[in-house]
Amino acid sequence: MIPFVGRVSSEEQDLWIKTLSTAMPNETVVSFSDLSHEQKHQCELAIVANPDPEDLVALPSLKWVHGLWAGVERMVHELPEASFSIVRLVDPNLASTMSEAVLAWTLYLHREMPTYARQQKALSWLPHPMVSAKNRRLGVLGLGALGRASAERLVENGFSVAGWSRTPKHLDGVECFSGEQGLRLMLQQSDILVCLLPLTKQTQGLLNATRLALLPDHASLINFARGAVVDDAALLAELDSGRLKHAVLDVFVTEPLPLNHTFWQHESVTVLPHISAPSNPQSASEIVASNIAHYRETGDIPTSVDLTRGY
Amino acid sequence: MIPFVGRVSSEEQDLWIKTLSTAMPNETVVSFSDLSHEQKHQCELAIVANPDPEDLVALPSLKWVHGLWAGVERMVHELPEASFSIVRLVDPNLASTMSEAVLAWTLYLHREMPTYARQQKALSWLPHPMVSAKNRRLGVLGLGALGRASAERLVENGFSVAGWSRTPKHLDGVECFSGEQGLRLMLQQSDILVCLLPLTKQTQGLLNATRLALLPDHASLINFARGAVVDDAALLAELDSGRLKHAVLDVFVTEPLPLNHTFWQHESVTVLPHISAPSNPQSASEIVASNIAHYRETGDIPTSVDLTRGY
Repeated sequence: MIPFVGRVSSEEQDLWIKTLSTAMPNETVVSFSDLSHEQKHQCELAIVANPDPEDLVALPSLKWVHGLWAGVERMVHELPEASFSIVRLVDPNLASTMSEAVLAWTLYLHREMPTYARQQKALSWLPHPMVSAKNRRLGVLGLGALGRASAERLVENGFSVAGWSRTPKHLDGVECFSGEQGLRLMLQQSDILVCLLPLTKQTQGLLNATRLALLPDHASLINFARGAVVDDAALLAELDSGRLKHAVLDVFVTEPLPLNHTFWQHESVTVLPHISAPSNPQSASEIVASNIAHYRETGDIPTSVDLTRGY
Repeated sequence: MIPFVGRVSSEEQDLWIKTLSTAMPNETVVSFSDLSHEQKHQCELAIVANPDPEDLVALPSLKWVHGLWAGVERMVHELPEASFSIVRLVDPNLASTMSEAVLAWTLYLHREMPTYARQQKALSWLPHPMVSAKNRRLGVLGLGALGRASAERLVENGFSVAGWSRTPKHLDGVECFSGEQGLRLMLQQSDILVCLLPLTKQTQGLLNATRLALLPDHASLINFARGAVVDDAALLAELDSGRLKHAVLDVFVTEPLPLNHTFWQHESVTVLPHISAPSNPQSASEIVASNIAHYRETGDIPTSVDLTRGY
């Protein structure tokens, strides 16, 4: 009996339980809420997706939990004294999913979908001149696994792509910048800036008023990294003045985005509920199944998260 | 003096006149409305973009007009007795532009952008399970230049792609169907159906109630071909009942789409103002410039449209 402990929609929970059960025909995966008091005391293993910490505390025999997402920052933050191991999902499909999201929302901006959506609401039939992909300059911030896959996907689809990383890197077909001076140069030529930087002390607030001011007029921003990399107030000022055109935001300092936040109802902001690169239930379930089968055979818990580093 | 005669936004007219002038430094391109009475009587050549037929009648010396779009059906229809030749734009970039649009709005549906837009309006933070591209089955109707380029672009980006044409064709990586039986089979397995069929007697109303009923539950439609290929009433019935999920429509029986049409305010319809594959001003201007330079040298008018075939 393995409980699924998560704060997700019931639609999503049902999908996960079904996919996990298919991948592990010898295990019984059930919703946490369906566990009896006795069952709760027996579970030594749980599968978790943004779990309520109190639910985990109600499982006193827990030895380890297997997360379904790559990021476990929140769980680590909420369970600083956890007596069980936290295993995060390491799925090689993640870079491909993220590069698909980057391409999807780049095309969303490139093909003026926000403008045409506004026009439809106003019953306005008004074609706008089209910019060719090769005349649309993309800038990708961060050239780790996600940034590289995204930059390459954009090049394959005809865009002019530059990339920036802290230390110098080389990617075929991508104009690579590095360091502080390189950052300034890349920002100045990015019609669409895609942020894929990890959140560290160095990247916290990196996209502040000074750096956003370097972007060309009518440039747009896609943030699929972490909310705190962008200075919200500076971004809002640039959008309100109309100097920057649009922002696609999938990540926020506080998630879910608080209901009173200006972003929700801002005409120039597309708010997404952290869905740019979700785990693929099929491939994730297979990875979880393999880790659990190994544990059943050997008693070995897969490599867990270092609670001091947080990842 | 070459007049630009068009019913387009002033933004678009300005862009065209600027780009055409750059491509033809030895010619003077001006807006029709800036011509004097005398100048109107002298013009033997005009550049047109959905022109008002009355404007062309006001140019009595006209020998030929160069269109800026591939489609000239409307001009031919409105000018059945034209005494001048109509030259349409033949731009090899068109298939690439169309395949980009097909990819863009496929990703729009694939990544649930209409759903997330509705949720943003409702201040609702609700991630939905993601379907991987290889589990998303695309069906492309029509495998001419536009259909082939689109099917290939979708394959390159990881989708499972089938294609249908009247006569059998072969495309690497695409499951090809043909004929009436093949059409039924493909419709039954298309989560997203992309229509790129030319409008002919055979394709008029092809997507009627019977054929739309073959699509899987919650399938979506993209129509980038001609409005009359789809039976609007049948499509609306499927969308109203929720059996079909969404339609992205760029083309309509009457364009601009009349203000009282149900599509405009339908939650499950994305209305676009015929922008899937507009001419690229740069490449189109170069083609026009080359045709006009050849005419100035030789007096030869480029191959014109056959008014009986209409293309």
